Amino acid sequence: MTAIQLDDQGGLRHLITTQGLPRALIEQILDTAESFVPDPGAPPRKVPLLRGRTVFNLFFENSTRTRTTFELAAKRLSADVINMDVAHSSRAKGEDDLDTLFTLQAMGGSIFAIRHPENGAAARFAAHAADDVAIINAGDGSHAHPTQALLDVFTIRRHRPDFANLAVAIVGDVRHSRVAHSTIQALRTLGTRDIRVVGPERFLPPDPAALGVTAGTDCAALLRDADVVMGLRIQRERIDGDALEGVSDYHHRFGLTPANLAHARPDALVMHPGPINRGVEIDADVAYGRQSVILEQVRNGIAVRMAVMAIIAGNRQPRG
Amino acid sequence: MTAIQLDDQGGLRHLITTQGLPRALIEQILDTAESFVPDPGAPPRKVPLLRGRTVFNLFFENSTRTRTTFELAAKRLSADVINMDVAHSSRAKGEDDLDTLFTLQAMGGSIFAIRHPENGAAARFAAHAADDVAIINAGDGSHAHPTQALLDVFTIRRHRPDFANLAVAIVGDVRHSRVAHSTIQALRTLGTRDIRVVGPERFLPPDPAALGVTAGTDCAALLRDADVVMGLRIQRERIDGDALEGVSDYHHRFGLTPANLAHARPDALVMHPGPINRGVEIDADVAYGRQSVILEQVRNGIAVRMAVMAIIAGNRQPRG
Amino acid sequence: MTAIQLDDQGGLRHLITTQGLPRALIEQILDTAESFVPDPGAPPRKVPLLRGRTVFNLFFENSTRTRTTFELAAKRLSADVINMDVAHSSRAKGEDDLDTLFTLQAMGGSIFAIRHPENGAAARFAAHAADDVAIINAGDGSHAHPTQALLDVFTIRRHRPDFANLAVAIVGDVRHSRVAHSTIQALRTLGTRDIRVVGPERFLPPDPAALGVTAGTDCAALLRDADVVMGLRIQRERIDGDALEGVSDYHHRFGLTPANLAHARPDALVMHPGPINRGVEIDADVAYGRQSVILEQVRNGIAVRMAVMAIIAGNRQPRG
Repeated sequence: MTAIQLDDQGGLRHLITTQGLPRALIEQILDTAESFVPDPGAPPRKVPLLRGRTVFNLFFENSTRTRTTFELAAKRLSADVINMDVAHSSRAKGEDDLDTLFTLQAMGGSIFAIRHPENGAAARFAAHAADDVAIINAGDGSHAHPTQALLDVFTIRRHRPDFANLAVAIVGDVRHSRVAHSTIQALRTLGTRDIRVVGPERFLPPDPAALGVTAGTDCAALLRDADVVMGLRIQRERIDGDALEGVSDYHHRFGLTPANLAHARPDALVMHPGPINRGVEIDADVAYGRQSVILEQVRNGIAVRMAVMAIIAGNRQPRG
Repeated sequence: MTAIQLDDQGGLRHLITTQGLPRALIEQILDTAESFVPDPGAPPRKVPLLRGRTVFNLFFENSTRTRTTFELAAKRLSADVINMDVAHSSRAKGEDDLDTLFTLQAMGGSIFAIRHPENGAAARFAAHAADDVAIINAGDGSHAHPTQALLDVFTIRRHRPDFANLAVAIVGDVRHSRVAHSTIQALRTLGTRDIRVVGPERFLPPDPAALGVTAGTDCAALLRDADVVMGLRIQRERIDGDALEGVSDYHHRFGLTPANLAHARPDALVMHPGPINRGVEIDADVAYGRQSVILEQVRNGIAVRMAVMAIIAGNRQPRG
Repeated sequence: MTAIQLDDQGGLRHLITTQGLPRALIEQILDTAESFVPDPGAPPRKVPLLRGRTVFNLFFENSTRTRTTFELAAKRLSADVINMDVAHSSRAKGEDDLDTLFTLQAMGGSIFAIRHPENGAAARFAAHAADDVAIINAGDGSHAHPTQALLDVFTIRRHRPDFANLAVAIVGDVRHSRVAHSTIQALRTLGTRDIRVVGPERFLPPDPAALGVTAGTDCAALLRDADVVMGLRIQRERIDGDALEGVSDYHHRFGLTPANLAHARPDALVMHPGPINRGVEIDADVAYGRQSVILEQVRNGIAVRMAVMAIIAGNRQPRG
């Protein structure tokens, strides 16, 4: 699932997952993204790197927010952008999705940002894509969300560049989170060894050692002296109906509250992939407090997606 | 609610309401809009005033038509435009809306055209907006719809520039109409003293004197010698189920029909914010007749929205 | 219904139907489209022919795919594009649709690509359009779909330019297909005399001779030595509930399968307007096989729509 995303020269061909993505490529993306971060107070710059190219946002699962980040990234590279929200009916088969890909390729699309409810969908699209087409995984099932992971490590690097000596705690439903999976992989590739995941027992990964993380249910113990505390968006359905662990109990035990954060370093970065559920997995005061880099994550997400598209396009100069 | 829309130099900072908007600013907008009205038969001009800027159409209430006017205005200023239709579920709280604003600001949005079902929503957004972000109210609840009011007075001025000696009759559900409220305020600021509102008793404002208008249920009396007759779009739900005042009765008593219009001046302008309900609050023959300036209102609406965006952007040159 | 689409000099004014469209105009469109087909492996070119113009995709019937082809065609001509999906409620009357047209014209739209569920809707819009506005029929009821027909004959011409000596078989629900009607008319205008339509009895046109085609239910007989075999997308509802002629029976008798195709010439072109229903009216192996030009049709569809827009815009240089 990882070889598919590299070209013959080892350059970035598609972006499917951070699993197995070489450190040099991650660093190339982060370094390129630096040039796309706007100066403080200035509007974002627009560059002509994708002028004349067509980017499709092909979303088989609804996500206005993520789609907007890809749309903005493509527009700031001067591409034409087509948004396609495709209902993924239970009746639809994988072949139908590929027919959609083949059709949009024939329309001249160069880059496809694909969001899909099924694990592995992005790799499947990449395996069938035309030579001059690149696939970017915008989230597939609970499998991977590599651009989110890259913006996470990009944001961390701007504040805490020494990945090898970093303690990162991820709090929430790690088991079902494509964000957590992809970010853990990116952190490990960059050298971070101390990664802890925290949450109710049923939210913990079945085999933490295989992921390379420490897991537990005790926020106090696992946030101890952490440099980075990352909350995950909670699916309310997963905690709502539960008599013992309802929303307020979850908030008390696992929310990013001043009390829970007190266990981490005083200058620990607070992160969240958004959108936040105030008063559930995070307090508003914390989300917009002095330690938070959540809005930086959003801003950096555009820069990182621009970098991914620009690098892929540069590696795949059109023939002829 | 008005101070918030001016900057330190008294320039336009946000556009939230026409209430308290200084006459000089209204006239600046109208004068600027003149330059954006296309020549007869020529396609609209495109200008680079917002090149590289991102305009968000953030609509918490569906309105394809109004959204399109803002989208076109922004595109003709060469901005990148992102349309965001955000379901405003009853569960959503005001804080969630602000989280959306903060997120989109972090994505580099410069101007937000916001439509929202709640009175006061636009002012609330403006109060929390970042320094380099401007809010334009595209309609909030029954509170205000300032760009509609400005295109109304712009259209009137092109035909009847002497606002002080103008008699304007507004027919329909003035009580619940943000358009009527905003247009009345703009007219009064420009010097119009003779403003009448007409409709069934329950559609009249509770305190006409406070609004600065004369109110009544007698179309003949209130349209007498009017220079401008403005119909309002009727919510069919408000008149449908009513045995005594059903659609046909409403049309007979308050519709912009040749019979009712006969009370106004023979050259009275006929206006309507659109979309019209033919045969309800207006006859098609009247809507497309020689007195009608309804389609001019539509055309002017783009020019006025371009003017508002251009002025705001000019007042807020980015730092750095 | 045909005179309306020509201007005083016989140039293309609107594109409503291929019925009665002069051969010289069809060939002008096809020749112009050649210049818009991208070189193999190269991304599509962008040209400034519609810079500053506004194209509305006004869709009263949902079709993401067709809308995207018009959106891409317009963007590659450098136009600004506004997508309007307008629910066509059963309550809406034709007049309401015209009000929408008049409003969008007033906003400065130059070209309207209109999809509508009612036969004749495009001609009705054209009859009421302003002088400086052009209507392109993107499919109206079961009446016509002229851009699809033009891309069909464009694709055929690139492989089999001798229309006079061509045998074309169209398989499926020809009776209800606007694609089939428009393509048959275009083929006949270009000189093709041998056109056969094949399908279950109730899918055949009531008067084949009037259409200028041979009709029958025997695939073997009607595909015999055909140069082009064109499948039509089947509406599953039309065959699903039928005990005798269910999906598998339909597929066996009328599907574009290797067995049925064996009756045509070995190098017969396989065509389909898309999207395909795999295993129903066509086999995937055939759709993506060596005879298939289905994805070429998609690619050519952008070029043909660019050509139509460019020609119309050239014929209607703005006044003033």
